[in-house]
Amino acid sequence: MPTVSARRLREWSERVLVAAGVAREHATLVAESLVAANLRGVDSHGVHLLSLYLDQIDAGDLDVSATGEIVSESGACMVYDGRNGLGQVISSICVDHAIRLASELGLGMVTARESNHFGAAAWWASRIARTGKIGLAFCNASPIVAPWQGREGRFGTNPICMAVPSGQRDPWLLDMATTTVAANRIFKAHTNREPSIPAGWAMDRDGVPTTDTEAAYSGLLMPLGGYKGSGLAMMVEILCGVIGGGAMSTELGGIRFRGKPVRASQTFIAIDVERMQPDFRDRIDWLIDAVKSTAPAAGYQEVLVANEPELRIERDRLTAGIPVPEGTYEALRVAAARVGVTEALQP
Amino acid sequence: MPTVSARRLREWSERVLVAAGVAREHATLVAESLVAANLRGVDSHGVHLLSLYLDQIDAGDLDVSATGEIVSESGACMVYDGRNGLGQVISSICVDHAIRLASELGLGMVTARESNHFGAAAWWASRIARTGKIGLAFCNASPIVAPWQGREGRFGTNPICMAVPSGQRDPWLLDMATTTVAANRIFKAHTNREPSIPAGWAMDRDGVPTTDTEAAYSGLLMPLGGYKGSGLAMMVEILCGVIGGGAMSTELGGIRFRGKPVRASQTFIAIDVERMQPDFRDRIDWLIDAVKSTAPAAGYQEVLVANEPELRIERDRLTAGIPVPEGTYEALRVAAARVGVTEALQP
Repeated sequence: MPTVSARRLREWSERVLVAAGVAREHATLVAESLVAANLRGVDSHGVHLLSLYLDQIDAGDLDVSATGEIVSESGACMVYDGRNGLGQVISSICVDHAIRLASELGLGMVTARESNHFGAAAWWASRIARTGKIGLAFCNASPIVAPWQGREGRFGTNPICMAVPSGQRDPWLLDMATTTVAANRIFKAHTNREPSIPAGWAMDRDGVPTTDTEAAYSGLLMPLGGYKGSGLAMMVEILCGVIGGGAMSTELGGIRFRGKPVRASQTFIAIDVERMQPDFRDRIDWLIDAVKSTAPAAGYQEVLVANEPELRIERDRLTAGIPVPEGTYEALRVAAARVGVTEALQP
Repeated sequence: MPTVSARRLREWSERVLVAAGVAREHATLVAESLVAANLRGVDSHGVHLLSLYLDQIDAGDLDVSATGEIVSESGACMVYDGRNGLGQVISSICVDHAIRLASELGLGMVTARESNHFGAAAWWASRIARTGKIGLAFCNASPIVAPWQGREGRFGTNPICMAVPSGQRDPWLLDMATTTVAANRIFKAHTNREPSIPAGWAMDRDGVPTTDTEAAYSGLLMPLGGYKGSGLAMMVEILCGVIGGGAMSTELGGIRFRGKPVRASQTFIAIDVERMQPDFRDRIDWLIDAVKSTAPAAGYQEVLVANEPELRIERDRLTAGIPVPEGTYEALRVAAARVGVTEALQP
């Protein structure tokens, strides 16, 4: 598979976004967030999304000039209306407010409504963690997940993400869809024409579990561990859509549907943990070491903590480059050409 | 199976706790929290725990007179030292602080360290929800869960719980262990001499998955959905043990181990949601209806939301009484006799 350096991928993505009418600083932000996901090996949230963002802009389903406005601020809580702006632009503003509120009051919670796809949640929670605070990020999404015991979509993949500052160890970072897998894993299998997916990922449109990529693509994702994943997805919907006052469940659009806005909501929570626990960084290092000291189960060489697999891939891809599958490459080429960028991604 | 009314079970439990040296108001609180779990059908967190609490008191591993003290309060954040008091006594104080902080600042987060078993997390989150706020409760626990890819215990069942006030609908309430099942499900199978448990619940002491109750009893619980459950358990450990400054992971004792305190930590978060979303109650009703309107998958009659199954059992048990299995009955009789209560539970 051909590889492209992170730097080149960022530059090219930024150029394409600017050609599509996105202000340069916002184009930089979006390009950085997508390539950061590719670097971590989370290609489902990487630059392949660019062609979908461009489709939205082209269809007039997303307002590239909107930066949103504060709806209310009360104590440590804020609600923000994204006015259908780019998800990364709205999230960047909201994350900064969450950090400010937590600096002032110990905790900060900001919910953005009428937002769009914001890339990987990890990018935002990590930005909070880099200020020494614990960062949490949640997002509702298109209703492609059936609740437990149901066969119609009501929830999104609704991720739960927490990033935690550390001392000598790498930061701890959990970013997980509340489904067995993220939706983009199935979309990517579809784009790359992989015939089958593992069992437990999805059901077909009749609610029957399937391993056929095309049946899953037109079907529904399955919640993690049955009723528990279903409950976690609803928890995220409450923290995002219900609190924010925007779209909930079936009211959401999606980046693959044209003719209506996505209307996603995102919630960011910052915890100024050092005022609760001055030794926090030493303690998280201790916990990471304690978990990694576990004897491996049969068939495994070591025990990993959240963020370790992604950081290993990132170290590798920073030197070896980011592999871009043919399907993604072609989709990006077509999308770029539509906004007048004919320069090849791979020079 | 013989049944006992909730009222009788509370009275009898309270009497036994008082005989064990617990102040009456605290005995009432503990009895109420345990019987509330039985009413909801969550017998794993019901009165069978009483005999374990009495063992702890008898061994001097728990200080029935301790009510703890504030370590720090800063903005919306508080750390509390439970001084090895009864978990319900410490949690009651901390929940009240979380509610107060959220009333003042929109959000409140209180972490208790050096606490003990606090019953079901649902009881505490619900208490916050009854004040019109969203309540979250987390708890670390004895390290009987191996991290993903490991075969030694590092995490507890570390529950995640959120209770949400509603309008016309019943309150929404998720209370889930981050393992496939709660540990007490296996302990109860052991107490009641059930020979086997379902696949996926536990591994034996060598890290091999098992369905044998005794092998599971001396083995380890499995995290929900592999690495995701492992990540959620660590998230809870960070929010409780790491932030609180108390015991983490292998430093915890357990209610089944004598000669050392449990040293559990609990974190309570309250969100004054009405200042973010005045229409919150109508919106949560709408979401509950939207989820319940889902067409059922093959083999199911309806789609349920979190809290519905438990509330149905509660309505039933309020009239039919609470079934008490023979093993539980006998363990309670022996424990009560040790503190001089010979009055039968069933009059």
